[in-house]
Amino acid sequence: MANITKKVSWSSRADESGPAGEGTPLLNGSEQPRLSRQCIHAQSVNITVCVLFQSLDYDNIENQLFLEEERRMSYMGFRCLEISRWVVCGLIGFLTGLIACFIDIAVEELAGIKYQVVKENIEKFTEVGGLSISLLLWAVLNSAIVMGGAIIVAFFEPIAAGSGIPQIKCYLNGVKVPRVVRLKTLMVKVFGVICSVVGGLAVGKEGPMIHSGAVVAAGVSQGRSTSLKRDFKIFEYFRRDTEKRDFVSAGAAAGVSAAFGAPVGGVLFSLEEGASFWNQMLTWRIFFASMISTFTLNFFLSIYHNNPGDLSNPGLINFGRFQSDSVAYNLYEIPLFIAMGAIGGLLGALFNVLNYWLTIFRIRYVHRPCLQVMEAMLVAAVTATVSFTMIYFSNDCQPLGPEHTEEYPLQLFCADGEYNSMATAFFNTPERSVRSLFHNQPGNAVLNYNPLTLVSAGVFIPSLLIGAAWGRLCGILLIWADPGKYALIGAAAQLGGIVRMTLSLTVIMVEATGNVTYGFPIMLVLITAKIVGDYFVEGLYDIHIKLQSVPFLHWEAPATSHWLTAREVMSSPVTCLNRIEKVGTIVDTLSNTSTNHNGFPVVTNNTVSQRTKLCGLILRSQLIVLLKHKVFVELARSRLTHRKLQLKDFRDAYPRFPPIQSIHVSQDERECMMDLTEFMNATPYTVPQETSLPRVFKLFRALGLRHLVVADDENRVVGLVTRKDLARYHLGKHGLEELQLAQT
Amino acid sequence: MANITKKVSWSSRADESGPAGEGTPLLNGSEQPRLSRQCIHAQSVNITVCVLFQSLDYDNIENQLFLEEERRMSYMGFRCLEISRWVVCGLIGFLTGLIACFIDIAVEELAGIKYQVVKENIEKFTEVGGLSISLLLWAVLNSAIVMGGAIIVAFFEPIAAGSGIPQIKCYLNGVKVPRVVRLKTLMVKVFGVICSVVGGLAVGKEGPMIHSGAVVAAGVSQGRSTSLKRDFKIFEYFRRDTEKRDFVSAGAAAGVSAAFGAPVGGVLFSLEEGASFWNQMLTWRIFFASMISTFTLNFFLSIYHNNPGDLSNPGLINFGRFQSDSVAYNLYEIPLFIAMGAIGGLLGALFNVLNYWLTIFRIRYVHRPCLQVMEAMLVAAVTATVSFTMIYFSNDCQPLGPEHTEEYPLQLFCADGEYNSMATAFFNTPERSVRSLFHNQPGNAVLNYNPLTLVSAGVFIPSLLIGAAWGRLCGILLIWADPGKYALIGAAAQLGGIVRMTLSLTVIMVEATGNVTYGFPIMLVLITAKIVGDYFVEGLYDIHIKLQSVPFLHWEAPATSHWLTAREVMSSPVTCLNRIEKVGTIVDTLSNTSTNHNGFPVVTNNTVSQRTKLCGLILRSQLIVLLKHKVFVELARSRLTHRKLQLKDFRDAYPRFPPIQSIHVSQDERECMMDLTEFMNATPYTVPQETSLPRVFKLFRALGLRHLVVADDENRVVGLVTRKDLARYHLGKHGLEELQLAQT
Repeated sequence: MANITKKVSWSSRADESGPAGEGTPLLNGSEQPRLSRQCIHAQSVNITVCVLFQSLDYDNIENQLFLEEERRMSYMGFRCLEISRWVVCGLIGFLTGLIACFIDIAVEELAGIKYQVVKENIEKFTEVGGLSISLLLWAVLNSAIVMGGAIIVAFFEPIAAGSGIPQIKCYLNGVKVPRVVRLKTLMVKVFGVICSVVGGLAVGKEGPMIHSGAVVAAGVSQGRSTSLKRDFKIFEYFRRDTEKRDFVSAGAAAGVSAAFGAPVGGVLFSLEEGASFWNQMLTWRIFFASMISTFTLNFFLSIYHNNPGDLSNPGLINFGRFQSDSVAYNLYEIPLFIAMGAIGGLLGALFNVLNYWLTIFRIRYVHRPCLQVMEAMLVAAVTATVSFTMIYFSNDCQPLGPEHTEEYPLQLFCADGEYNSMATAFFNTPERSVRSLFHNQPGNAVLNYNPLTLVSAGVFIPSLLIGAAWGRLCGILLIWADPGKYALIGAAAQLGGIVRMTLSLTVIMVEATGNVTYGFPIMLVLITAKIVGDYFVEGLYDIHIKLQSVPFLHWEAPATSHWLTAREVMSSPVTCLNRIEKVGTIVDTLSNTSTNHNGFPVVTNNTVSQRTKLCGLILRSQLIVLLKHKVFVELARSRLTHRKLQLKDFRDAYPRFPPIQSIHVSQDERECMMDLTEFMNATPYTVPQETSLPRVFKLFRALGLRHLVVADDENRVVGLVTRKDLARYHLGKHGLEELQLAQT
Repeated sequence: MANITKKVSWSSRADESGPAGEGTPLLNGSEQPRLSRQCIHAQSVNITVCVLFQSLDYDNIENQLFLEEERRMSYMGFRCLEISRWVVCGLIGFLTGLIACFIDIAVEELAGIKYQVVKENIEKFTEVGGLSISLLLWAVLNSAIVMGGAIIVAFFEPIAAGSGIPQIKCYLNGVKVPRVVRLKTLMVKVFGVICSVVGGLAVGKEGPMIHSGAVVAAGVSQGRSTSLKRDFKIFEYFRRDTEKRDFVSAGAAAGVSAAFGAPVGGVLFSLEEGASFWNQMLTWRIFFASMISTFTLNFFLSIYHNNPGDLSNPGLINFGRFQSDSVAYNLYEIPLFIAMGAIGGLLGALFNVLNYWLTIFRIRYVHRPCLQVMEAMLVAAVTATVSFTMIYFSNDCQPLGPEHTEEYPLQLFCADGEYNSMATAFFNTPERSVRSLFHNQPGNAVLNYNPLTLVSAGVFIPSLLIGAAWGRLCGILLIWADPGKYALIGAAAQLGGIVRMTLSLTVIMVEATGNVTYGFPIMLVLITAKIVGDYFVEGLYDIHIKLQSVPFLHWEAPATSHWLTAREVMSSPVTCLNRIEKVGTIVDTLSNTSTNHNGFPVVTNNTVSQRTKLCGLILRSQLIVLLKHKVFVELARSRLTHRKLQLKDFRDAYPRFPPIQSIHVSQDERECMMDLTEFMNATPYTVPQETSLPRVFKLFRALGLRHLVVADDENRVVGLVTRKDLARYHLGKHGLEELQLAQT
C-alpha cells in the first residue's frame, strides 16, 4: 500500500542472521541494526493524518485497591454485577432499536414528502415540456437535504462521517479513536444518515447503525454522560476499558441486528470483526442485546405501520422473504455460483482500489469542511441528474399491478395504469431497490446500475445494489434461471468482495432474506469472493484502517517473523519510576512531550544485590489522578484525617483524564515523595528478551494488553513492548515489512 | 454435586484474610494452611473413576529446533502450509460427510429390512390373534441388533459409548481423554450407532457424528495412522497438539454440520463449546470444513435417493421445511414462549438430575462389560414392549393420504386406507417422529411420549422428541394455534434445558428447520430455558464432565477467587532440572511414580550471584525422546558423525510417546550428561507469586497453557501451576469450593 514509507525486505536476509540478537546491544532494542530503512513512495503519499491514537487497557489493572475491592465483594455482589450486566445489555438493545426505529420513520416520512413534492411538480411540467424545471427542483431538493447533513457532520463532528465500521473495529481491537463513542457523534451521525438517505445518496443505514449501537453502549454502560455532565451513580463498576469494550461489542451487534433483523449475524459480526478472547457468558449477553434490539425495532415499527403485534418486520433492511422451493438450486449451478463469487471478488477488489485512491484524493484535496459540504452537494446533484437522465431515456413501463413491491410509482411518459420502473428504482430508498431486484418477476428487466456514489456512509446497501444488478443480469442471460436468486447471489458476491467477511455475512444474508435454502450457495460465493479478492487487495475496512495508520493488531503475527525477538521489537530504554518517587520526577516524566509514554514500569532497589528489580507497572492516567489528589507521602503524614484515595476517584476521572499541563504542582510539592505501591499493577506480565515475536504477539493479543514489560533473567527492566511495536510488522509482497504508524 | 469430597467455604473467611499469603511459607504452596478440608458425601459417592487425564499442549514449544525451522521457512513455505491446512479441512469435511452418509444409508436399509420382517409377521398373526408372537419377534429382533452394537462397544472400545460430546469438549478444553480420537474408536462408534438406531433405541446420530468428525480430523491432519502403522509422510508440520486441536474443532463442526445440515451451527457449536481464542482464519477453515461436510452428505444422499443433483437434503436430521407465513407469531405469544422456555428449563433440569443419578448408578453397579451389554439389551426389549403395548391400546387411525410424511405405515387394527399413527411413530427412526410432530396437520393428535430411554447415545433427538411432544400438546390445548409451531418451540425448550447452549443451538434449529421466522422465539425460549435450568443444576455435558472428575477449565475463574494468589494455588516444591543434567537424575525423575510430573523447569546456576535462575521448561515427552535417541554430551563428542536430533524425531514419536520404563539406560550411560539447551522452551511464561488467581487463570486459559512457572523477583522457580491447580476451584452454593479431581 502506498502509505508505507518504511519498507524493508526481511525475508531475503533471514538466512544471514545467526542466533537471534547476536551482537545486538542489550539495552538498545530500538536501534535495530539490521533494519535498513528505505523510503519508497514517500513523496507521492505523504498523507498520514497525524491523529494521536491512544490504546485501551483491556487488561485489568490489578493494583491493591482493585484487589481489596474484589475481595470485599461477596458472592451476592458478583451475582448483582452479573445481573446488572444483563440489564445494561438489555438497555443497549432497547435504545439501539429505538434509534433504528427513529431513523426509519424519519426517512419514510421525509422521503414521502419529497416524493409528493417532486411528483406534483413533474406532473405539472411534463405536459407543458418544462422538464428542466423538474430536474432543477429535484437536484436542488436533494442537494439541500444533503447539504444540511453535510454541514452538521463537517463542522460539528467530522468523526461521524463515513460508515463508522472501521472506527468500531479499531475500538474493539484496542485502539481508542478520539471522540468516536460520544453522544455528540451519535446525534450528528443519526442526523447525517437521515439526510443522506432522504437526499437520494445510495447509502445504507447499517454502518451508522453499528456505530450508533456502539455509542449507546459506551454511554449506557457508564451510568453517566460526560457530555451532559450527568452522573446517575450507577454502573460505577463498569467504568474501565475492559468492561466498556464488552458492552461496545454488544452495542455493535445490536446495531447489526437492528439494521438487518439479524441477531445471530450481529453477534457473529461482533466476534468476527472485533473480539479476540471468546467468552461464553459475554457471547450470550451480546446475543441478548441483539435480540432485544431487533425486537424493539420490530415492535415499534409494527405500531407505526398500524399493525401492532405483528412482528414479521425484523430489520431496517428487509429483503423480503424468498419462497422456499423444494429444489432451490441444482448441482450444475454450483460452478456458476463459484464463478459469480470470483467475479464478485474481482469487482470488489476493483471497488476497493477505486475507493482507496478516492480516499487519498479526498484526504489530500478535500480536507476543509466547506469543501466537504460542497462535495456532498455535488454528489447529490450529480446523482439526481444522472438518475433523471436515465429515467428520461428509459421507456421501461410496467403495469401497475396489485402486487408491485414499489411504494412510489411514477407514471412519467408511460400509459395510464403503468409506471416507469427506472424512475421508481431511483425514487425508492436503496434497500427497496435491492428488494425489487430480488423479488420482481422475470421479464421486468430492471438493469439499473445505480451510479457508484462517491460518499460512502455505509457500503452494504450500495454494494448489494451493484451486486444484485449484475447478478440479476446474469440470471436473465441464463434464460432458465430465476433472476431473483441470481440477484441475491450477485449481491452476496459483490459485498463479500468488498468487505471480506464470510461467516457473519452468510448469517446476515440468511437472516435478512429469511431463508436458509440459499445459505450454502451464499457461503460458497462469499468464500470464493474472499479468496479472489484477497489476492489483489485487502478488504475495504482494512484499507481505511491502514490509511489512518492505526496501530491495528491483526489475528496473528506475520508468518515469517519468528526470527524477530522481543529484544528487537521492544522500545528501549524505558523510563522507569521508583516505587517511592519524587513528585518532581513524575511531573517531568509526564510532561516530556518527546516520549509521551503512557505506561511506566515501577522498579525497586534490592538492598542485597544493589540492582533494580521490576515490581510493578503504573499508567499515566493513574499518575495524573494521584497528582491531582496530591497523594504525597509527606501530606499523608501531616494530615492524619487525609482521605485515602479510592478506586472511585479513578473511576470518576475515567475516561477523560486531564492532561498533565492542567495540573498545578508547586515548587514545594515537587520535593515531596509519592508512594506508588498501592496503585501500581504489582503483577504485570513480563517476557524474557529472547521471546519470539509471534509468542509476544500471541500474549499481547490474547490478553488485550497495552504494555508488556521485557525483563532480563535478573528481573530487571530492559524494554517495553507496546501495541505500536507489534502493529508495525506487516507481511507484504516482499516479505516482512515495517509500516509507518501514527503516533501513539 | 455429590462427587465433591473436599468442600470448603471460602467466602466467609474472606474478611479475615489480610494481605495475600501473609505468613505462608514461600516454598510450600501445596500446604494451603487456611484450607480446612471437610469430607462430605465421601461415603455415598466414592465413585471417582481413576482415569489418568493428560493435558494437551496448546502452547507451542518454542525451542531452538522449532525456531530454526520456522526461520528457515520462506514466505512461500508458510503459504503452502496455509493451503495444506485448507486441504486438510476439506478432507475432514469430505470424510465426515461420507461417514454420515454411510450411517444414514445403513440405518435406512436395515430399518427397512426390520420393518418388512415385523410387518409381515404382524400381518400374519394379527388376524389369528397371536400378537404375543409378534411382540416377541420384535423384542428379540431389537435386542439382538442392540446386543451386537453393545458387545462391540463394551468389549472393544468402551470409550466409544455415549454421545462423545463431553469427551470432545474436554479435548478442545485441553484435556486428553485416553483413546478418544483413535481410528478404532471411530469404527466401533459408527457400528454402535447404527445398531442402536436400528434396534429402536431413541438415540440420535448427532453426538456420534460430532465424535466421528473429531476422530477423522485427528487422523487426517496427522498424515498417518498409528493404528494402521502407515505413515504417508505428509502434514508432518501438524504433528503437535496446537495444530491438531484446530483440526479437531473443525472436525466437530463438520460433524454437527453433517448431522443437522447446519454448517454455521457447526462452527458456532465448536466455538461455544470448545474454543477460547477466537481466530478469524481458523474460524473460516472450520466453516469450510462444515460446508464441505454438508455438501458431501447432500450429494451422496441425492444419488442414493435417485435424485442426483438435488441438494435440498442437507443434514442427517432433517426436520422438514416450515412454510413461511407472513404473520408467523404474534406479540401475545411471546409470554407463552417464555413460559414454555421456563418449563423446558425445569424439565431439562429434572432430566439432568435423573441422568446424573442414573449415571452414578451405572458407574457403581453396571461397570462390567457383560452387564453393560445386558443392560442395553434390556433397554431395547423394554422399549419394544412399551411401544407395542402403546400401539396395541391406541386406536388413533389416520387416513393414508398422498402427503403423509411417514415412510412405514402399519395398518394393524385400522380400516383399509388408514394407518396406526402410534405404530408409525415407533417404527420410524426418532428424527422422523420429530418431523411428523412438527409437520402433521392439526387434528392428528399424536401425543406419543416416547419412553425415556435409558441409554443416552446422543441426547439431541430424544430431547427433541420429548420437547416436541409436550410442545405439541401445548399447541393443541391452545386451540387457535398451530401445533407444529409449538412442537418446535417445545423441542427447543427441552433441548435447551438439557444442554444449555444458546447461540449455536438457535442457529442449528434455524438451519435444521430451514426457516428463520421462528429464530426469535427459539432464542427467547433457549435463553429462558438456560436461565431457569442453570438455577437448579448444570448442563448435561458439564455434569458428565464433572462425574469423570476431569480437570476442566471453565471460561473464567470463580468470581470470588480474587484473594487467592499464585502462591496458594501452585504446586510446590517443583522438580527442576539443570541445563546440563546427569542422565541418571533425569531417568530417576521421570521414573518417580509418586510425582508423575509432565513438565520440568530448567534452571541454570548464575556464577555471580550463586543462585539458580529459571532458563526454560522441558516436557516429559521431550526428555523421553532425548533418552531414546541417547542425546548425551559424551556421545556427541566421541561420535563426530552423530546425527543431530531434529524436530522430525519428536514429531515421529508424537502423540504416543513410550513410557520411561520401556527405555533402557545402562549404568554407564547414567553417568553421562545431557544438554537440554537446544530442546527446552527457553521462554516459558512466568508469573510472580502475588498474581491473583483470576489473572493466572486468564493467562492460562487464553493461551492454552499446560504449565505456568511461578517465579520470585530474582527469577528463581518457586512453583508450577498446572491445569489441575486451577480447575479444582469451583463456585458452589456455599462460596468457593475445592473439587476432588482425577489424577493428571
